[in-house]
Amino acid sequence: MLLADIGNTRIHIYNGKEVIHLSHKEAIEQYADKKLKYITVKHQLKEQLNSLKNWTDISDQIRIKNEYETMGIDRKALCLSHPNGIFVSAGSAITVDLVEEGVYMGGFLLLGLRAYIEAYATISPALKIELDREIVLDRLPVGTREGISYGILNSIKTIIDKHKNRKQLYITGGDGKFLSSFFEEAIFDERLIFLGMQRS
Amino acid sequence: MLLADIGNTRIHIYNGKEVIHLSHKEAIEQYADKKLKYITVKHQLKEQLNSLKNWTDISDQIRIKNEYETMGIDRKALCLSHPNGIFVSAGSAITVDLVEEGVYMGGFLLLGLRAYIEAYATISPALKIELDREIVLDRLPVGTREGISYGILNSIKTIIDKHKNRKQLYITGGDGKFLSSFFEEAIFDERLIFLGMQRS
Repeated sequence: MLLADIGNTRIHIYNGKEVIHLSHKEAIEQYADKKLKYITVKHQLKEQLNSLKNWTDISDQIRIKNEYETMGIDRKALCLSHPNGIFVSAGSAITVDLVEEGVYMGGFLLLGLRAYIEAYATISPALKIELDREIVLDRLPVGTREGISYGILNSIKTIIDKHKNRKQLYITGGDGKFLSSFFEEAIFDERLIFLGMQRS
Repeated sequence: MLLADIGNTRIHIYNGKEVIHLSHKEAIEQYADKKLKYITVKHQLKEQLNSLKNWTDISDQIRIKNEYETMGIDRKALCLSHPNGIFVSAGSAITVDLVEEGVYMGGFLLLGLRAYIEAYATISPALKIELDREIVLDRLPVGTREGISYGILNSIKTIIDKHKNRKQLYITGGDGKFLSSFFEEAIFDERLIFLGMQRS
């Protein structure tokens, strides 16, 4: 059975082996006649998705103990992937959630890397930079581009580290692989949301 | 002698007792015939400021050992206010700088509180919230508004705490008083930049 995670900008499809990332249009064109179960946060697509007879919305089945009402369905699925851990999804926003014995313990939202960079540029043209992806976080930087890159990446790293304690850190999402390079013993796996869907 | 710090949106004037915050237009109208020394980051105003015969640009005198070329003049003045410490200016952006024995040791830039809030809203209408200024940072929140407010304020607090060690924390800027409430033993003083100007 194919599984799909329909996000704000893309549809991610898991065929049991790999995750395929497509635009909404591409995914619907290529997969309309395939049997597929999906979750979606893209409410504007609801009617179009309902018209696809082979596609089944399983969003209502995705529940985690202690969830809150407006909690994103993709976050719930991610938190269901393993019974214990701290779960990071690094996309348009970066969500950080804690799960203990299958119970949702709370979490918080940071900006996604692109949103950070674009927000600095709105403050002043002098702060319009490209992220320095080679920045070293164990010494204080000098310079604007370095200072912004360090501020973004180290504030993300530091607050995640603070909540990690001895828990396993699981990371997914488009910027997940890059972010996981800043943590020792992090598990990056782009299938986590699908594992959660399978387990629900 | 009056001192002025000309920022991107306002002019801050120090009369030796208190700091007065005015729009560019208001400040120029009310203070054009007063003797005044200023620093400025607002390059678009340069010609108009030069035409004020009682106003003297002392930006060239503001230098700190180990400064970098594009370092903002207000940051330099702030770092000159005390020979040792960690200096936070919480305005449109939040700058965090370390000074040891009068030497600039580096620093980084975070988004200002308003820039954070506006950036979340650009990601999704579901993330458009007002900052919860009563948020408690010692327990993990549940909910969107709480999760965003916690993410903003605790990522700022945690990375500043990480760099504080046993140094004195000095805070200034429009959001400085509010931010200082999250730190024990922080000194909030809106005169810091002017103390730096006096000492240069």
